[in-house]
Amino acid sequence: MYKYQTKVRLYHTDAAGVIFFSNLFVFAHECYESFIEQTKSFALLLEECQYLVPIVHAEADYLLPIGLSQTLNIEMTLKNIGTTSFELDYIILNENNETAATAKTVHVVLDAKTKKSIEIPQEIRDILEKL
Amino acid sequence: MYKYQTKVRLYHTDAAGVIFFSNLFVFAHECYESFIEQTKSFALLLEECQYLVPIVHAEADYLLPIGLSQTLNIEMTLKNIGTTSFELDYIILNENNETAATAKTVHVVLDAKTKKSIEIPQEIRDILEKL
Amino acid sequence: MYKYQTKVRLYHTDAAGVIFFSNLFVFAHECYESFIEQTKSFALLLEECQYLVPIVHAEADYLLPIGLSQTLNIEMTLKNIGTTSFELDYIILNENNETAATAKTVHVVLDAKTKKSIEIPQEIRDILEKL
Amino acid sequence: MYKYQTKVRLYHTDAAGVIFFSNLFVFAHECYESFIEQTKSFALLLEECQYLVPIVHAEADYLLPIGLSQTLNIEMTLKNIGTTSFELDYIILNENNETAATAKTVHVVLDAKTKKSIEIPQEIRDILEKL
Repeated sequence: MYKYQTKVRLYHTDAAGVIFFSNLFVFAHECYESFIEQTKSFALLLEECQYLVPIVHAEADYLLPIGLSQTLNIEMTLKNIGTTSFELDYIILNENNETAATAKTVHVVLDAKTKKSIEIPQEIRDILEKL
Repeated sequence: MYKYQTKVRLYHTDAAGVIFFSNLFVFAHECYESFIEQTKSFALLLEECQYLVPIVHAEADYLLPIGLSQTLNIEMTLKNIGTTSFELDYIILNENNETAATAKTVHVVLDAKTKKSIEIPQEIRDILEKL
Repeated sequence: MYKYQTKVRLYHTDAAGVIFFSNLFVFAHECYESFIEQTKSFALLLEECQYLVPIVHAEADYLLPIGLSQTLNIEMTLKNIGTTSFELDYIILNENNETAATAKTVHVVLDAKTKKSIEIPQEIRDILEKL
Repeated sequence: MYKYQTKVRLYHTDAAGVIFFSNLFVFAHECYESFIEQTKSFALLLEECQYLVPIVHAEADYLLPIGLSQTLNIEMTLKNIGTTSFELDYIILNENNETAATAKTVHVVLDAKTKKSIEIPQEIRDILEKL
């Protein structure tokens, strides 16, 4: 499990007074980037790699309103890792330690040139095993 | 079915050269707002109503890369409507009329004061039936 | 002058009930992209060019609140064009044809390889002269 | 002076490989919110106050490219405080302690009901004097 803390800023909210729903994925991806950066610059992952790791599926369940100025604690776990894809699960906890939302993202690995799916490289497996 | 067209702007993309994945939900919600506004100002829906219609679940499948300057056609359909919730499905077509992504959002209706789930009001049912 | 119309979506607003101030620049840049695309794909401008056209200065004045669901009309003009930079001015009109905000962006042209400032290429001059 | 640290995430970048220019204002406002929250919840400032503190002018100068995964240090100072408005200046330093950008925001205080400009309340003056 990887733990990440973030804060809801005005920019994340909308006129309904709570976060715009898609920003939950922004928080989840911040957590993912922060985790990757323990090992490797996320910028380098994008710029220099022979492979890409796009998201092919994302979903979220919204259980409690998430409002401005809240501190969120995110717990990310590796749910599944297959030959060519892996799934990350996220629990988003509010300041009362209640589960305000859950999310998941499914990632595949593509060859950067051919854009075709390839087996998860050992480098990525090694990073994910730290979860 | 409701059809909506939008365009991928620089702002929607990220350093990987395609849209940041959460922005697919931005496009889907634009479509939803546009549909609602055929009947009623979305701003009024937020400001004056006795109920709220938050999203409790959202998901997306990403099938093809969606790049800068692409024109997207979104087709929104009402998949399910129950007593207290409804599900909207979205097909996102690229300029070659290929399905680049699909998405869904599940909405519930809450009493604006008590924040408790209520039956879908007739006003909302009437709007959704146009789909 | 180039005219562009856009619409304020929930995503552009914040918990104060109007647009988050930085989104005015999102609208202005949408207008700029739309203008460029009359001549040339904005994606191509980024991907294939021998030069970059980054923004080195941006500013905005906010005169009236800009709320959800408002239709905005943007008028973009070329204010100055020098040897190595140009300035675009934007007037943002609300539905009552009032000036809700003004903005400007100053752009320079860089050699894509050296990242050093160069004279504005004729191709860009030709596009800007249409304003 | 108030110091704030933030990190450039994939979400802040665009297909040109660096931050989308309007996101500099997102970083600046994060800093402002963080400063306010030393004294008072920013959410409370919005929800319960008898006044509003909208931004009426914003500007930024971009000196160096700001790329993915960079840690930014922001230094915010109170430049001017008048009867009805105040100006905040921001210096955005990159990891090499170079000034990558500067920004400023000018804020006025409005009566929450009448939406008319009022003198800066003592509560706000007290907060700003900490800068």
